Amino acid sequence: MRKVDPIKQQERRRHILNAAAHCFAEHGFHGTSTAQICERAGMSPGNLFHYYRSKADIIEALIAADTEATRDVIQAACASPDARAAARGWLAEQVLLYLDPSYVRLGMEVLAEAVRNPAVHALVIANEAERKQGLTAMLASAWGKARGETPPQPPDEMADMILLLLDGIFSRRVVDPGFDAKAGRRLIESALARYLPSDTAAGGRK
Amino acid sequence: MRKVDPIKQQERRRHILNAAAHCFAEHGFHGTSTAQICERAGMSPGNLFHYYRSKADIIEALIAADTEATRDVIQAACASPDARAAARGWLAEQVLLYLDPSYVRLGMEVLAEAVRNPAVHALVIANEAERKQGLTAMLASAWGKARGETPPQPPDEMADMILLLLDGIFSRRVVDPGFDAKAGRRLIESALARYLPSDTAAGGRK
Repeated sequence: MRKVDPIKQQERRRHILNAAAHCFAEHGFHGTSTAQICERAGMSPGNLFHYYRSKADIIEALIAADTEATRDVIQAACASPDARAAARGWLAEQVLLYLDPSYVRLGMEVLAEAVRNPAVHALVIANEAERKQGLTAMLASAWGKARGETPPQPPDEMADMILLLLDGIFSRRVVDPGFDAKAGRRLIESALARYLPSDTAAGGRK
Repeated sequence: MRKVDPIKQQERRRHILNAAAHCFAEHGFHGTSTAQICERAGMSPGNLFHYYRSKADIIEALIAADTEATRDVIQAACASPDARAAARGWLAEQVLLYLDPSYVRLGMEVLAEAVRNPAVHALVIANEAERKQGLTAMLASAWGKARGETPPQPPDEMADMILLLLDGIFSRRVVDPGFDAKAGRRLIESALARYLPSDTAAGGRK
């Protein structure tokens, strides 16, 4: 019997998920074969099967991995002494992702699969719930530390609005080639100016 | 040789597109067979083939038909003596559509196809350009008739922002079952309060 090294196993899984994400972004879920994923990952089908039993398994694992990564990033942001800067940093990263064509293609695949496939839909909803909960916590923490200012809306409503704007940027990138990255960034900047306490109230120095 | 009645032909085409839209919303483009479309439309494959040569043809015709319908609706709105009311009416209809689950499913299919299929992508971009151009014209017309008020931003930038908010509502409906229709409507209401001249300036009576 072969020994199983859990860390190496996890690395192999991550390697497969990365390879699959590339294939999915390029050819779509339904246009990608497991053979293509194997080729991209440099693995035999038997070896791949050892980690994931099907393409559907891989799709679900991809979303679950993103949910976990979101949780980790947001937990770290919430633990940061400067919650306001952490929220800004997280959002800047999100905007960058939403402006990356291959991320947008993969995201669109996931959404399209979600409307047809209840298992994927449940994972997408869980993923979004994690984002919303995390962003709400970051905003609450930033306002909790603010002196002499009160938030314009409850943190969960502000989180809703920010996530909706991110969704909008995401869609614009697909449907309007004239929509430029700068407009997306400005939009989030002005939302943050409204939804985060001022630098002075947060005790920052800038 | 059979006589061709152009109006009847157009009606048949519309009938096929409606049947196809139902199938696509339910099973996705790739999960729908032409046999299913025939069944739903109550037509033989030979008869369907007379109108559309392939499923891809039908998908493209669906988007093109929506673009034309958008053009007609917006032209009528721009010709209306009360441009402000026309813009509000058009947006209220858009929000209703974006809150309709089967419209959202079909829209998501179209977007997912667009990221993989250049012909569909070009049609989606043309569709969106029609919407943006139309909304820009409606806003310009509403402000053109307003007395003593100036728009907060150029009309095309306001149109961009409104379309982005609609996109956001569309996506929220897929990823967040807790996002309610009322929040979507409120959001568009408050955008309109910002992006349309006041009722007094527009010469309305309310």
